[in-house]
Amino acid sequence: MTSRSVEEHSAEVQRLLAPLLAPTVEDVAVTEALGRVLGADVRSPLDLPLFRNSQMDGFAVAASSLAAVPVTLPVTGTIAAGPAEPAPLAPGSAVRIMTGAVIPAGADAIVPVEDTDATEDSVTIRVPRRAGEYVREAGTDVRTGDLLLAAGTALGARHLSLFAAVGLATVPVLRRPRAAVIATGAELVRAGEPLRPGQIYESNSVALAASLTANGADVVFVDRSDDDLAVFGEILRRATASADLVITSGGVSMGDFEVVREVLTPLGGWFGHTTMQPGGPQGLAEIDGVPVLNFPGNPVSTMVSFEVFVRPLLRRSAGLPAVPREDLVLAEPITSIPGRRQFLRGRRVDGGVALESGPGSHLVGALARADVLIDIPENVTTMKAGDNVRVWPL
Amino acid sequence: MTSRSVEEHSAEVQRLLAPLLAPTVEDVAVTEALGRVLGADVRSPLDLPLFRNSQMDGFAVAASSLAAVPVTLPVTGTIAAGPAEPAPLAPGSAVRIMTGAVIPAGADAIVPVEDTDATEDSVTIRVPRRAGEYVREAGTDVRTGDLLLAAGTALGARHLSLFAAVGLATVPVLRRPRAAVIATGAELVRAGEPLRPGQIYESNSVALAASLTANGADVVFVDRSDDDLAVFGEILRRATASADLVITSGGVSMGDFEVVREVLTPLGGWFGHTTMQPGGPQGLAEIDGVPVLNFPGNPVSTMVSFEVFVRPLLRRSAGLPAVPREDLVLAEPITSIPGRRQFLRGRRVDGGVALESGPGSHLVGALARADVLIDIPENVTTMKAGDNVRVWPL
Repeated sequence: MTSRSVEEHSAEVQRLLAPLLAPTVEDVAVTEALGRVLGADVRSPLDLPLFRNSQMDGFAVAASSLAAVPVTLPVTGTIAAGPAEPAPLAPGSAVRIMTGAVIPAGADAIVPVEDTDATEDSVTIRVPRRAGEYVREAGTDVRTGDLLLAAGTALGARHLSLFAAVGLATVPVLRRPRAAVIATGAELVRAGEPLRPGQIYESNSVALAASLTANGADVVFVDRSDDDLAVFGEILRRATASADLVITSGGVSMGDFEVVREVLTPLGGWFGHTTMQPGGPQGLAEIDGVPVLNFPGNPVSTMVSFEVFVRPLLRRSAGLPAVPREDLVLAEPITSIPGRRQFLRGRRVDGGVALESGPGSHLVGALARADVLIDIPENVTTMKAGDNVRVWPL
Repeated sequence: MTSRSVEEHSAEVQRLLAPLLAPTVEDVAVTEALGRVLGADVRSPLDLPLFRNSQMDGFAVAASSLAAVPVTLPVTGTIAAGPAEPAPLAPGSAVRIMTGAVIPAGADAIVPVEDTDATEDSVTIRVPRRAGEYVREAGTDVRTGDLLLAAGTALGARHLSLFAAVGLATVPVLRRPRAAVIATGAELVRAGEPLRPGQIYESNSVALAASLTANGADVVFVDRSDDDLAVFGEILRRATASADLVITSGGVSMGDFEVVREVLTPLGGWFGHTTMQPGGPQGLAEIDGVPVLNFPGNPVSTMVSFEVFVRPLLRRSAGLPAVPREDLVLAEPITSIPGRRQFLRGRRVDGGVALESGPGSHLVGALARADVLIDIPENVTTMKAGDNVRVWPL
């Protein structure tokens, strides 16, 4: 049996997941858009500032009234921030004005309150002001039609602030792919359920759902199946009905009870071996137009399969930045099996990377302590301490 | 009037927020714990693997039966993964076994199916095996009582996978501070509401709620008040009843309609000026034991106040990593006002940082395009292109 390389299987996965990579856009409330990715350029429906307003608490005047200072001007009223259509300022007078309030016609400068001495109905101004001082002209921050933010922007608080300021209630964002997860295996029980001899706690659905969520998917369906073909078939039918992508774990390899392979092979699924370790046995299928990826059931195999085959594509689909590969210096020698693309669990240490326990695909304690996968090419069998090695940050 | 320095006001804020910095722990479902921070060390309640099991699909044998190969052994049955209490293996026989299945007593090696020729009731094995090959011994990944993950770990998928694998349904995480936001101002209307002359769209509550959420708080209350003292007082009462921290915007400065200052000063609140620009006017109070921070109402002032006074403390409280300050090279000269600690909006450019528009505290378009705040010390009035400047990443 020839095995697919990681690149070959990745290409098949990418072909299958192509629909997810043609992003679609949905409108969400600005108040719910934190962390989403803008799906289209957004232009301003109005000017900011929307109207000429005061930058300070103080007095609105015509700068020409301050030709000789100190000068005392009559105060004709008060303009607060808020709904207001103030009358034009009479020549030679001043009006009390608050920060953000509409500046009346006839006034062209603001004198801050701390530069004045005022009574109820007059103000003495000690320093001259040029026209325009402490005046915020309409449109000086944003003009109607200006590009506010470009498609692809990952939305943070300051972006939402701007959308709110121009009165947008919703914004177009990339729709998150809807994902479904099915863990399979007669040996699996959920936390809290009684454990009989030969059974283990199910962790792959937890791991996959969290991995999908952390990389931009919306997990809409999580279930678990034993090795009964009809039960799995029915769960799969519900998963494909609700999701853009289904990931299963378990039931893909060479054993006698391989529920995923047995159900999906007659439906056109591919099952075979890749040179990847862990995660050698893989499967994929398209059911009712929905891509279905089938990972092996060992917990480390499942996680490595996600990191290698799904995470880069999913992040692209969600508009999230790629996780960069890095080259680090090995802190210790390693050996690898010829013809196997090994992904060892590693941990950053001072200036380099060390192995985190052994290669076994059941070592979930070691995986939890790891922060990178160490990528050993197929043709490499030994590496020395001090060699450069490619790592994939987890 | 003397002004507080940023350090002085920060110290006051930190004193006020001290209760938030004594973290409390809550249990959440493992399936809901993605991104949360572990509030206590977690030890394993069981061994992993839980029982001695097979690493491969194949045949369980006593290695001693393979002293001379090829050898043909009778096959006494099949052990699948799943609930099973297999009988001990009879000497000189083999049992068909699936990955993850319980290895019977008397067997000490697994022969992978691909190294065998089998009929229904016998198997011919071509290669010898040492005792222990393809056998996963109980407890070789994790032992009962082992530290699984330490307090302070930010939980990712692989951590949740481990918790699930040892059967934990819940884990102790740091409780997120509950935050309330109140925007004040008679000029404010919400997106979608009709806009009368002198009114603007309210954006500070959107910006603050998103900033709080992005930095580990749980925003439980968002409201808006006009300049009516009784209205604001009632909203404040509801906010302090539900939250560990209240942030208000607006109503703190020198104007005639300063609702926040007028309500909180008689209740022991402090209101005054800091040397920070934007964000000079600040207030703080403690109401019914709940810290209340009062930011000025200009949108940029509000955001800078959050970044400078709240974000570092909130991230510490939530167990999130600090946002590092960086030193970058100025791409252009700047001027600053003596005695003012300016936080200019900047944008990373090739190897340095450029100004993003002017210093005005109303320039929300420029703030949205910025990715750092440029921190200009009080005693600095000019800097040249090429000078190093401290930046705070947004």
